[in-house]
Amino acid sequence: MLDVGVSGGIVAADAGYAMMAGGDRSAFDHCRPLFEAMCQENGWGLVDERSGAGHFTKMVHNAIEYGMMQAIAEGFDLLERGSYEGLDLRETARIWNHGCIISSFLMQMVQSALDRDAKLSDLKPHVADSGEGRWAAFEAMERAVPFVANTYALQARHISRDDDSFAFRLLAAMRREFGGHTVKESPR
Amino acid sequence: MLDVGVSGGIVAADAGYAMMAGGDRSAFDHCRPLFEAMCQENGWGLVDERSGAGHFTKMVHNAIEYGMMQAIAEGFDLLERGSYEGLDLRETARIWNHGCIISSFLMQMVQSALDRDAKLSDLKPHVADSGEGRWAAFEAMERAVPFVANTYALQARHISRDDDSFAFRLLAAMRREFGGHTVKESPR
Amino acid sequence: MLDVGVSGGIVAADAGYAMMAGGDRSAFDHCRPLFEAMCQENGWGLVDERSGAGHFTKMVHNAIEYGMMQAIAEGFDLLERGSYEGLDLRETARIWNHGCIISSFLMQMVQSALDRDAKLSDLKPHVADSGEGRWAAFEAMERAVPFVANTYALQARHISRDDDSFAFRLLAAMRREFGGHTVKESPR
Amino acid sequence: MLDVGVSGGIVAADAGYAMMAGGDRSAFDHCRPLFEAMCQENGWGLVDERSGAGHFTKMVHNAIEYGMMQAIAEGFDLLERGSYEGLDLRETARIWNHGCIISSFLMQMVQSALDRDAKLSDLKPHVADSGEGRWAAFEAMERAVPFVANTYALQARHISRDDDSFAFRLLAAMRREFGGHTVKESPR
Repeated sequence: MLDVGVSGGIVAADAGYAMMAGGDRSAFDHCRPLFEAMCQENGWGLVDERSGAGHFTKMVHNAIEYGMMQAIAEGFDLLERGSYEGLDLRETARIWNHGCIISSFLMQMVQSALDRDAKLSDLKPHVADSGEGRWAAFEAMERAVPFVANTYALQARHISRDDDSFAFRLLAAMRREFGGHTVKESPR
Repeated sequence: MLDVGVSGGIVAADAGYAMMAGGDRSAFDHCRPLFEAMCQENGWGLVDERSGAGHFTKMVHNAIEYGMMQAIAEGFDLLERGSYEGLDLRETARIWNHGCIISSFLMQMVQSALDRDAKLSDLKPHVADSGEGRWAAFEAMERAVPFVANTYALQARHISRDDDSFAFRLLAAMRREFGGHTVKESPR
Repeated sequence: MLDVGVSGGIVAADAGYAMMAGGDRSAFDHCRPLFEAMCQENGWGLVDERSGAGHFTKMVHNAIEYGMMQAIAEGFDLLERGSYEGLDLRETARIWNHGCIISSFLMQMVQSALDRDAKLSDLKPHVADSGEGRWAAFEAMERAVPFVANTYALQARHISRDDDSFAFRLLAAMRREFGGHTVKESPR
Repeated sequence: MLDVGVSGGIVAADAGYAMMAGGDRSAFDHCRPLFEAMCQENGWGLVDERSGAGHFTKMVHNAIEYGMMQAIAEGFDLLERGSYEGLDLRETARIWNHGCIISSFLMQMVQSALDRDAKLSDLKPHVADSGEGRWAAFEAMERAVPFVANTYALQARHISRDDDSFAFRLLAAMRREFGGHTVKESPR
């Protein structure tokens, strides 16, 4: 059995996919013409001779993706609200994609998103997640491998979808209780 | 010069304060009657002979307080929304204050807050912070002392007050851009 | 079926345990004499009528415990290595247990550990973990409940036991690769 | 005054630098020939008309860099020690640079580092940091902008250099104190 994890996003339909295969080498060799037809040059390979390794690798790929996205998003948030409020995010994203250490496919996505609307005003601050980030976080915990930034990137998405957090309300309640601190009361 | 950090919250007006002094020992000895009058037994002392050490200690105290509060708040959030949704939070808080490893003044505050209203329905999920947590996080970074949980507890409060996060909107924008993932659109 | 989570540590053999029960109320009522015999006053109760809720509650208890311990440990690390290096940790722990917001059973444990040896010089920086913290982190991720500080407290223990981190070596390798930064080379 | 933040690493001497300028537009226009001579096409621009904005932008760039590096390093650590221990890291890095969502300059650095030695056996797990990541974390805290993953990436480097962590020893001490748990004793 050969298993194949696939990455590339919607642009890959034109640009070619990336494929990570796991399983028997003879099965892999048999499929070479498929990989050559569908993938970018150098964008495919056998990562391990055990079946499952392909999707395992793709799962870790997605966890890294979450972490990199979180790092980028926090940075632009700081640009947008830091001491130079109003600085040109589009110009910045463009420069960051041409010769910077952080140039990347994800930064190109940021660049095109900001080019369309630098205020992102049609979007709500809610971020979905699919399963791979969570599986990777589980695996890391199961194996006692530290996975802090990537796990947090997943947890941040959970936070983004939690509009009436019980945890935050309890924090406010504790402060009121011990310090008599004023709180924001709900109209409910 | 003697500097004195004070803790105890509003109940300390009756129960006695806790005081951490920094500075000259003779000045400290001179003030003993004051400490005895205002503090709980054993709840005061000279932490260092350098002025400023008292408030430094109190600053670190507050950073720990943030971290402990965050740990507790996350735990009750999981009780409230975990596999046993609806389990009795008041009963739990009471037990946790009588013989458990996590029994603490803060847990007593949780107990009395929940006793008043286990749903905390009059509170908004907005958490304020005063300066000490931030100063401690700065100091830790300045000295390269890892301070992850306590720094996060501060950052969590920032998150709680950020209702239209640019970072979260940019994450959603990236997902739409590379994956064609559906997003929650804003009515704006 | 009645399930009962137990807390209290080794001192509980004398001081009385804390017990969180889950299951049928009649079974719970039947066992009252046992709870009364073994527990602290108010330190036992039925948290939910579904079996399993007792251990679920105890599992969350332990995750909070990890988070609180991490918060405290980071604070003392900052006291020990901050701007007032050498300040009196024992005195501080004592004051913090008498009237401070962060007074707690765990802080008492710190106080007695420091009283024995304020340098903790017989200990290696390796921290074990049992399963409950991990289960709670899994459960939180499964239910999309943010659990950042408590999960990190677990991950910190993994970090503590990872003496030749591949992640850290790869970070150093990347820095050398793109920046020509000097690295600490291994004698291997 | 025109200030110019520069990125690109050592390869930029050949490939061209990236430059983020802040300050007066006429001063910027005056310097265009310099930017054209030293930078990659599209790899330079005026991010804001206030002096200082160039280095501010470069500072945030470096914080993102830390976060992205941490995300990548954690992922490879999980590949190296996860369920498919021994899978081919070089092959994986190569595929990830050809058509994957996480393809990036930093991933190319990983690829060349692993090509030289997939075990990174000449490196110690110690990671240095220069000032920018710290300044960005300060700025974020000052402005109450959540910056969790990028701040953690900095703190992880502090952890990497802390071989005899007092925090970890105190955690072990607390466990021994309340639970009688065995600890790793130091030969000291």
